[in-house]
Amino acid sequence: MPSRPDAATTARSAAELTDPVPAPTPAVVLFDVNETLSDMAPMATRFEDVGASPALAATWFASLLRDGFALTVAGARAPFAMIGAELLRTLLPADELDRSLDAAVEHILSGFGALPVHPDVPEGLRALAATGRRLVTLSNGSASVAEGLLARAALTSYVERLLSVEDAGAWKPAAAAYTYAAAQCGVQTQEMVLVAVHPWDVDGAGRAGLRTAWLNRGGMSYPAHFRRPDLEVPSLLDLADRLGSGLD
Amino acid sequence: MPSRPDAATTARSAAELTDPVPAPTPAVVLFDVNETLSDMAPMATRFEDVGASPALAATWFASLLRDGFALTVAGARAPFAMIGAELLRTLLPADELDRSLDAAVEHILSGFGALPVHPDVPEGLRALAATGRRLVTLSNGSASVAEGLLARAALTSYVERLLSVEDAGAWKPAAAAYTYAAAQCGVQTQEMVLVAVHPWDVDGAGRAGLRTAWLNRGGMSYPAHFRRPDLEVPSLLDLADRLGSGLD
Repeated sequence: MPSRPDAATTARSAAELTDPVPAPTPAVVLFDVNETLSDMAPMATRFEDVGASPALAATWFASLLRDGFALTVAGARAPFAMIGAELLRTLLPADELDRSLDAAVEHILSGFGALPVHPDVPEGLRALAATGRRLVTLSNGSASVAEGLLARAALTSYVERLLSVEDAGAWKPAAAAYTYAAAQCGVQTQEMVLVAVHPWDVDGAGRAGLRTAWLNRGGMSYPAHFRRPDLEVPSLLDLADRLGSGLD
Repeated sequence: MPSRPDAATTARSAAELTDPVPAPTPAVVLFDVNETLSDMAPMATRFEDVGASPALAATWFASLLRDGFALTVAGARAPFAMIGAELLRTLLPADELDRSLDAAVEHILSGFGALPVHPDVPEGLRALAATGRRLVTLSNGSASVAEGLLARAALTSYVERLLSVEDAGAWKPAAAAYTYAAAQCGVQTQEMVLVAVHPWDVDGAGRAGLRTAWLNRGGMSYPAHFRRPDLEVPSLLDLADRLGSGLD
């Protein structure tokens, strides 16, 4: 005759009946969008198209984040696309362009709406979804840019929701942006893993209590001024492998 | 026989006896250092010296501020020079350098200690000091860099104190950095005018309650995502002219 089960065993058995496959840890994979999912290399070509140096693309994108973060530090904010447009007006050499400054700004900005995903993204997202995790994006840009990006790659069905800091009240890497994402997903921050190519995003997410994965496609060194990621992977497929059995 | 003076008149007369020349408004001119006082153009030459593109200098400096601001957003911080060195290790093309990566990083960083002031600075500081105002610097970098810069230009005697955010607990544009400077000078924030070439600095100082002057040496347009300055001037000498009779 079996011994009488104790209370803990009873509770576990009940949980198994209603949820036979325990949710994996972490339950939600939270993706950054620009550069993490999208390949931004074509943006440099857009600068070249209008008669500017392609090297300006990197300065421009770093300046865009610099100014967005500066506003966040000062307790303010502005839309990503607005900052991008205003900085193009400052950085583009108006005298050397093959068209008006307005037309050049428009040509470069519209490049955001035509970017492809990185080659590892389709297989990576499918493999990550197959581990039973929920896939969500969180961008400092608008949700519509992420939506278009995934639609062009026929990957929309793998992603549960597309979040933007525009609804969070603060840009990443403010803790409020990550806790907003957790609340939208109905989980605790420690049940999410943030995936990003940007060390500043890994740092902020880690401080906000998320698990973190640094996607290092280029074999770069990780800057010592930021908190280290829990995982470093060269591609999203590697991330799926590493997460297969959980992060713990 | 004169009428009996009222209390307000008595108080004013007493003040005039001890301080016959009223302090000008604003009383303290608070200077940013990098690019505002120093001419950073030679930094691009340092990149060229080691075999890298001079265009990388602008990307590097924008990235340095981006990462410093990101840490500030996340409630953390790191020294300016450390972030600068770490980002050089990421941005420099190791395979194309004419020396080791360590030596290239060292050569570029040491450029900060050899920068000249902009041509308008000597006459501008003298003219500003002649208006009876106190001149103070506040840098996201170390105070020693500002000290060396002013010493090389023989301008040390015009500047009352050299402040660094390293002692403020937060980088500019956090309000804490500006209120730290005001406390060190024993004035209210509205008694200071922040002078900077960087719109993000003008924005943060304005939100913290300071008066602001945007030093626009290059005839740039001011980005609409930031609060506008109280004054825009093409040189420090023009600033001295504009402040001659007070900002109000």
